[in-house]
Amino acid sequence: MSTEVQPDTARNARAKLLDAAIQVIRAQGFAATSVDDLCRAAGVTKGAFFHHFASKDGLAVAAAQYWSAVTGALFAAAPYHDHADPLDRVLAYIDLRVELIDGAPADFTCLAGTMVQEAYAASDEIRAACEASIFGHAATLETDIEAARTKHKIGGDWSAKSLALHTQAVLQGAFILAKAKGGPEIAREMVAHLKRYVRLLFSK
Amino acid sequence: MSTEVQPDTARNARAKLLDAAIQVIRAQGFAATSVDDLCRAAGVTKGAFFHHFASKDGLAVAAAQYWSAVTGALFAAAPYHDHADPLDRVLAYIDLRVELIDGAPADFTCLAGTMVQEAYAASDEIRAACEASIFGHAATLETDIEAARTKHKIGGDWSAKSLALHTQAVLQGAFILAKAKGGPEIAREMVAHLKRYVRLLFSK
Repeated sequence: MSTEVQPDTARNARAKLLDAAIQVIRAQGFAATSVDDLCRAAGVTKGAFFHHFASKDGLAVAAAQYWSAVTGALFAAAPYHDHADPLDRVLAYIDLRVELIDGAPADFTCLAGTMVQEAYAASDEIRAACEASIFGHAATLETDIEAARTKHKIGGDWSAKSLALHTQAVLQGAFILAKAKGGPEIAREMVAHLKRYVRLLFSK
Repeated sequence: MSTEVQPDTARNARAKLLDAAIQVIRAQGFAATSVDDLCRAAGVTKGAFFHHFASKDGLAVAAAQYWSAVTGALFAAAPYHDHADPLDRVLAYIDLRVELIDGAPADFTCLAGTMVQEAYAASDEIRAACEASIFGHAATLETDIEAARTKHKIGGDWSAKSLALHTQAVLQGAFILAKAKGGPEIAREMVAHLKRYVRLLFSK
């Protein structure tokens, strides 16, 4: 079976650069990644890069938005939403996050967390795009957490929003420990604590 | 009262560069920090830099070790060790971590976590120095966690070592959320979840 090769249209070059950004920046960090690195990884010319992005910072903002869209689609389509009990949906979300922690850190860590760690002070546009990515993803968990609280009649001095953000804090920190340790196991172990915490919050 | 100005000896230049590294790298990241930036912040010459460090990577390894020593001394001398009950010592440690989260992210975030986020793949020496800093600090908590478990007769499918590392994962993730949000409040809120988790693990 032959596959027709698409011409390297402008649209293709942009998509290739955004895909390359996700891989290269997660592997080597944002500041250490040059426009040349991104063009090489994407297989496009520097002319194509500057046709689509005014600067490396412009690419970073677009990459954070693209990262939000790609991961947003992944989580929106994931089967954890199918559980009848909202608490089971939250726990299954955490299980999925554990499953996704596999391979090399560049494969499972977070583009937004990596970029904001370095660039939060240098570029408010990059900071804001990373904030929107991390906090926007957390917000997708709030409804289930709130519904779980209501269904299981759980009180406590915490909000659904705050717990949703805490899931992301644990994941971001787990990624740093995985990078320090050089493998995914420690990150999975840290997220297991998160699951234990959620179970404890919902036990009576 | 007059103070005598110390001559800018070689030893002084090294200490100044290490102090500058802690501030500058936490503010702008590791790859974005040049040797010139560090010399300017330290008020020393480039010649002095290369007298003490073979390269920027060499400075990074020394800075992670210096960071471990400085923060190690701070925590070793902190009053949380004075509580009679080991669980109170663990909880007071977490309270201290909340207290320390104040001001700008460059003032309260972790040098080792920032550097390893970017440089884990580029330099195994930097990765290992950051691993030693983060995992070494976690190890200082293990004895109290284990003693608290024994005293309060707490079982569970977790180890003192793993919970000690989890405290560091939450802190590292809290710092990333603070950078994304642009302020310390969200980080304090995330560490409050950690305290709630520890309390729940030790409730019967």
